[in-house]
Order: sequence, then structure tokens, then C-alpha cells
Amino acid sequence: MKKPISGFSKLNKLDKIEWVIKNSFSSNNNIKNVLQQYYNDDGKLQKLHDEFAENTLSNFYLPFAIAPNFLINNKLYIIPMVTEESSVIAAASKAAKFWLEKGGFKAEVISTIKIGQVHFIFEGNFKDLKDYFENIKPKLLTDVDSLTTNMNNRGGGIKNIELVNLNDQIENYFQLKASFETKDAMGANFINSCLEQFSKTFKDNFKDSSKIEIIMSILSNYVPECIVKAEVSCPIEELYDNSIVEPISFAKNFVRAVRIAEVDKYRAVTHNKGIMNGIDAVVIATGNDFRAVESGAHAYASKSGTYKSLTKASINDNRFSFSIEVPLALGTVGGLTKLHPLANLALEMLDNPSAEDLMQITAVAGLAQNFAAIKSLITTGIQHGHMKMHLINMLNQHKASDIEKENAIEYFKKNTVSHLNVEKFINKLRSND
Amino acid sequence: MKKPISGFSKLNKLDKIEWVIKNSFSSNNNIKNVLQQYYNDDGKLQKLHDEFAENTLSNFYLPFAIAPNFLINNKLYIIPMVTEESSVIAAASKAAKFWLEKGGFKAEVISTIKIGQVHFIFEGNFKDLKDYFENIKPKLLTDVDSLTTNMNNRGGGIKNIELVNLNDQIENYFQLKASFETKDAMGANFINSCLEQFSKTFKDNFKDSSKIEIIMSILSNYVPECIVKAEVSCPIEELYDNSIVEPISFAKNFVRAVRIAEVDKYRAVTHNKGIMNGIDAVVIATGNDFRAVESGAHAYASKSGTYKSLTKASINDNRFSFSIEVPLALGTVGGLTKLHPLANLALEMLDNPSAEDLMQITAVAGLAQNFAAIKSLITTGIQHGHMKMHLINMLNQHKASDIEKENAIEYFKKNTVSHLNVEKFINKLRSND
Repeated sequence: MKKPISGFSKLNKLDKIEWVIKNSFSSNNNIKNVLQQYYNDDGKLQKLHDEFAENTLSNFYLPFAIAPNFLINNKLYIIPMVTEESSVIAAASKAAKFWLEKGGFKAEVISTIKIGQVHFIFEGNFKDLKDYFENIKPKLLTDVDSLTTNMNNRGGGIKNIELVNLNDQIENYFQLKASFETKDAMGANFINSCLEQFSKTFKDNFKDSSKIEIIMSILSNYVPECIVKAEVSCPIEELYDNSIVEPISFAKNFVRAVRIAEVDKYRAVTHNKGIMNGIDAVVIATGNDFRAVESGAHAYASKSGTYKSLTKASINDNRFSFSIEVPLALGTVGGLTKLHPLANLALEMLDNPSAEDLMQITAVAGLAQNFAAIKSLITTGIQHGHMKMHLINMLNQHKASDIEKENAIEYFKKNTVSHLNVEKFINKLRSND
Repeated sequence: MKKPISGFSKLNKLDKIEWVIKNSFSSNNNIKNVLQQYYNDDGKLQKLHDEFAENTLSNFYLPFAIAPNFLINNKLYIIPMVTEESSVIAAASKAAKFWLEKGGFKAEVISTIKIGQVHFIFEGNFKDLKDYFENIKPKLLTDVDSLTTNMNNRGGGIKNIELVNLNDQIENYFQLKASFETKDAMGANFINSCLEQFSKTFKDNFKDSSKIEIIMSILSNYVPECIVKAEVSCPIEELYDNSIVEPISFAKNFVRAVRIAEVDKYRAVTHNKGIMNGIDAVVIATGNDFRAVESGAHAYASKSGTYKSLTKASINDNRFSFSIEVPLALGTVGGLTKLHPLANLALEMLDNPSAEDLMQITAVAGLAQNFAAIKSLITTGIQHGHMKMHLINMLNQHKASDIEKENAIEYFKKNTVSHLNVEKFINKLRSND
């Protein structure tokens, strides 16, 4: 039944689907309907989305949602978020509201430099290489003129190129390590194109070009010099709402919970995962690349040699402070940012931010998410809110009617939500009919 | 104009949109149309998707695509992938095809244990705590009976609970650290619900319950005991296709490129980011939580104290081997897996895999992606394939017609793709009309 195929990518969409139906394990002839029920009525719009990737068969829906009430540097934002995890948006919205009345969030960009590398092997005298590097440096820069014109006009460009000697790690291994300012672009294509030209210029102009072997040229997603900081703070006594019984003990427990994520890796990873729930939701909504952001953030969390929390909390002079410092290489032009109509809309909702603005907004979303998570964890417990949200999903699995849902929501206000209990409740409800 | 709002989540969808239009920065009255053009015609289906998150305003489309020709443990798979990054699917498909003729991928699950923690403060004698823990342990387990029945029936459950003393890190800080087998469920809700019950039982039954202060109870996304390994290997001389000029130097360069990602953090992060391009695409397509997988994988990459490559490559006895070892806590039941119609379809396409099967398939997708990336990097350069794919996006930005696209694709076979060059080309084309 199942067999390999050549030239699959050249088939049209319908032929691809027919082939999948014939060649996937499932005998479910419903495959076509399931895929096509998600097609957009607007053929042109559908084509745009099809072309974002290869072999696209359908549109995978993720909720495009918003969290209102974010006060950031005294400006009010409605933050667009895309996430499949129930309770993330609710948590963000609650944290936004909580801090709205306490002056909101403060955020600032610390630095915006990105790194790219040409990795190469050089067999010869290091001094020769160093001399050559100093000589060729101006030409490395002029040879990328056609690539850098636009970026230079926007105030960005290549900041520096250095020669790095890693011969002690791998025999004859060196790097050209370049730093870039890419302004409102994430800049991956710009950086990679510059690096590939560097590698050509660098190799071709050496007196004996066979002595230089280029291994690869590529940007780095490790961006410890592209950092944003966000913070909230207030007098301890203002830490008050219906789930906080006592502000002082809440503040102490909060600080301790964050401290635990500094000393215990098992906790730190989950703690940072929660931060990324907020960050990624904004990253996706604005058409940015969440794998790049994830890898940069987690690697940064491990920079001391011990994987640690990205946030910090403290109490000083009766004042509670909570902050995040995270690398975020984001763009507000290029890539999908303007091309995906909802990403474009998301950016409009944020007042067409610069990349630096978006770094701040995104870091705030991460900090808010972490605040909400820790607050739940140290007060009602995470499951309370989470299972309440997840209850709807479970009820949908049982194809519950609106009336059944209402009954269930009422019942589970006082009873433990679990798959088993939901099943029991629904069965009981239905047997009474 | 912009103002805060209370009770936003209680508004209906249309009222939410009206409020956003009034309160976002943009004066663009097109907001409503852009959001609503993505609504599904099937009201029931739309409602299902709306309920996945809170404050959902529309459906964010990501391409649902497939990569055929994956031979894994001698079984042929069509892998569903969801990604917004052009060239990821193409790269995965190419790698699948490349290895198909060489025996395909081998994969095995090494371990499947997940961890959860009750973090608490105990003021008193450690020996008392230890004695109490040993005494209460059976009751900790019986008190979660109602939660564990289903899981035990499926062959999973609680494997162990231990008392951890971290008093030297934070004063009076201890943990109940429990390990779980959650079978085909990712298990987050199961683990968290068990932990919250542990914390109640543990505190309430102590002779002086005020001496035990529960800080929080939550699963860990750090899962170094939930590991899968995947591998490809072949005689060096079989490493041959139209981009590989010479198999031996290709193999050597490949091994060196992976080695660089072991010694240089700037490279390692990007290297692993590429792996996650493949892994996350499968994780999302199958309704799993990519933030959990990302945090677990990157933390694992830093486990030695130095952030390193998740893959390894070697040459032994004239044989090239390339492998990945990565923690993947995935589910094929629960969460969105069965609830999101396309996630459900994705699992059907994969022959309704167990969680262990899915771990293997996902690890293979990551390894394939990394193979394709390194292969491009050390042969044609990453930009060649990437910009070819990205060209379509750039042309769409200029609203290029089909004929203009054909012309552009032909022209850019021999010319460097950049935003500037595409713009120039399109302008020239149009001025000739």
C-alpha cells in the first residue's frame, strides 16, 4: 500500500492530497474533507498561505487572541497572542490588569547586536592569517555593498568583523565573527547573505586560496547582546487581590519561588517554559520565528554554566520587584511580519512598533505570564485555573451540548476536574435524560 | 482614545472585535474584515477552535504540510509538519529521500520517565521530616487513587516519590520529587493533579501542620529521563548526490561542522535551533506543546555545563554515522491531540502512534532537518535553498502575478536573491510593460 514517491513537491495540492489518501495508513476517506474544511473561500488568500511553506495541504488553525490592559512605559497596549494552550491568554490578561493599577510595566532595550560567523580551516602560520585578515577587512566590507545599501540607509549594517582563533579546540579551526545591527528586521537573510559573501571574498583573495577551507557561514541564534529588560514593582502592601490572603507572605513566597528556579534545574526549566508561553504567543502573532527566540532564550538561561530562571524577584525597603532579562531577536519588517495578514494586523494593533518596541512588549508578555503562573502556583495552585479552562476542551471531547456545559461548569466549581470525573459526570447527566 | 477595560473576557466575540477596533492604535477600519475573512463557514467547527483559548478573535493560519518518504525502523511514514518557515518542509523531504535509499532512519526510546515536584519549607528537625516521609508515603499514594485509576489501567502511574533536601541552597527548603510514567499522555494535568494532592496529604497529616509550608506543586519540563535516540548511517562512498562533489571530504566536513557545534556556543544554539525547526513542526502538527519540548531540549543541551549540539556525527571504519539524543515528552492522547481535527488527522497519517512511536518520529524529523541544514551549509550554503524558497514570499510582497513570478524564478536561478534585487527586478519588469 505505502510506497515512496519522487517529485512529490511538483504535484498540485489536490494531487498531493489524493496521493496521501492512497498512501497513508489510515483507511479514513474523510481525510479530504477534514483538510478541505479549512480552506479559505478566497482563493488568492489561500494561495498566499499555501506558499508560506512547501507541500501545504491545509491551514492549521491556532487561536489568534488578545490580552488587553497592558500598560508598558505608560502606554496602553492590547497584545495579540497566538497560542494553543488554554489559560495562557487568561493568565496574561489577569497579570496585565493586576499591574495596570500599580503603574504597569517598565521596559528597556539594553542592546541590539546580532552575531554571524564564517567558520573555516586554515593550514598555515597564524601570523600570516592575522596579517591577511587586517589587509582584507576593508574589502570584506566593500564587497557586500549591494547587500548592505538598504540596511545602511535604515541606520543598520555591519558593526565589526573579528578573527577568532579556536585552533586549541579543533585543529586549524578559525572564525570570522561579525556583528550586525539590523534595525527593524530580524535580519537572518541579510546576515547570512553578508556572511556568504565574506567567505567568498576571504577565500578568493588569499595568495594561496587552497589553504583556506570554508566550512560554513551562518548567523547565530545566540544573541546575548540583543537584550531587553522588563520590570514591575510596587509597595508590598499593594500586592492584594481576592487570591492573595496576606501581601507580606505572598511577596516572600513569590521571591522564594523565583529563587527556587535559580537553584533547581528541574524547576528552572518549567519556570522558563512558562515565560516562553507568553513570549512565543506574541512572537508567532507578529510573524516572527519562535524557534530562534526559544533557542536564544534557553541558551542565555544556561550562560553561567547552570541553567537558571530568566526572571528575578526581590524585596527591598518594603517594595516588591520582579524583572526579566531576555535576548529577543525580533523583526517588524521582512519575513512574514507584513506578509501574513494577521501578523500584519497584530503589528497594527501594537501601533506598528519598531523592533525595539516589540522586544519590550514581548518581554513584558513573558514577565506577565511568569507572574501569573507563580501567583497561581503559590496561592490556589496551577490546576485550579488551568483545569477550569481545560474543562471546556474535555467537554468538547464528549461533544457536550451548551446545556450540558453549563451544568458541568457549575458542578466543577466545587469538584475536582479530571478526565475520569468529567466522563462520569457527563454519563450520569445523560443517563438521567 | 485607548482605555483599560474590565470584564473583557465576558464579551462575545463580535463585541470584543468592536472594542478592539475602537481601542487599538490603528485607525484601520479594515480590522474586522481581516479578522473575519479567516472565520470558518462551519459555525460548530469555528466554536471548537474559539474555545481552545480565551479571547479568540480569529484563526491564525500556519501551513499544514507533509514530508513524504521517511523510512523509520523499516516502516514508511508521511510526516505531517506545521511551520511558518519556508524551506523547512523542503529540507526535511530532501533528507528523507536521501536516506530512504540508504536504509532509512533507526530510532529507539531510551526512557519515558517524567518528574514532578512539591516544593516546601519545613522548619524543624530533618530526621523527623525523614521519618514522617517514610510513614506517610503509602498514604500519599492511596490518596491519589481517584486520579490514578485510569492511568494505572493503561500501565502507567506513579513510579516513585523521594524526599530531597535542598536546605543547603535555600534555608529549610525541601522537595517531594515524584517520577511518573504517563504512557500515551503527555501527562501534565495528571502529574499536576497528583502533586497537588500529595501536597495536601503531606501537610495535613503532619503532627504540627503549621511546620510544613507548601510553596508550590508542579511537573517539570526538564525530562532527561524521557529520551529518544535516532540515527542514520551508511558507508561513506554512498554519500553522494548532485550537491556532494566528493563523499570523503563531505563526510569529514560534516563531522567537523557538528564538532564545531560542540565547542562553540554561538554555533551550537543555531545548530540546535535547526533541529527544533523539524521537531516543533511535528510537535505542533500533532497537537503537542512546543514550549515544553523546546525548554526540555535546550536545557538538556546545557546539561554538561556547556551548551552543546544535540546531534553527533562520526566516521568509523569507513562508515558515516549521524545521531540525535533528545528528551521529548509527547502525548498522543489528551490535550489537543484528538480535539484539534488536523492534529487528529496528523496522528492518523502516522498510523495512530503510541507516544513512544511519536517520540521516534519526531526525533527523526529533528535529525533529518539538521542533516539537511548541515548538508546545505557545507555545500551550496544555506542561502541558496533558503532564498529560493523565500523568493516567493518576497514576490508576494510585491503582489507579483503568476507570469511575473515565473520570470523572477527564472532570473534568480542565476542572480543573487535579496530584497533590493527582487524590488529592482519587479520594477524593471513592470516598467517594460
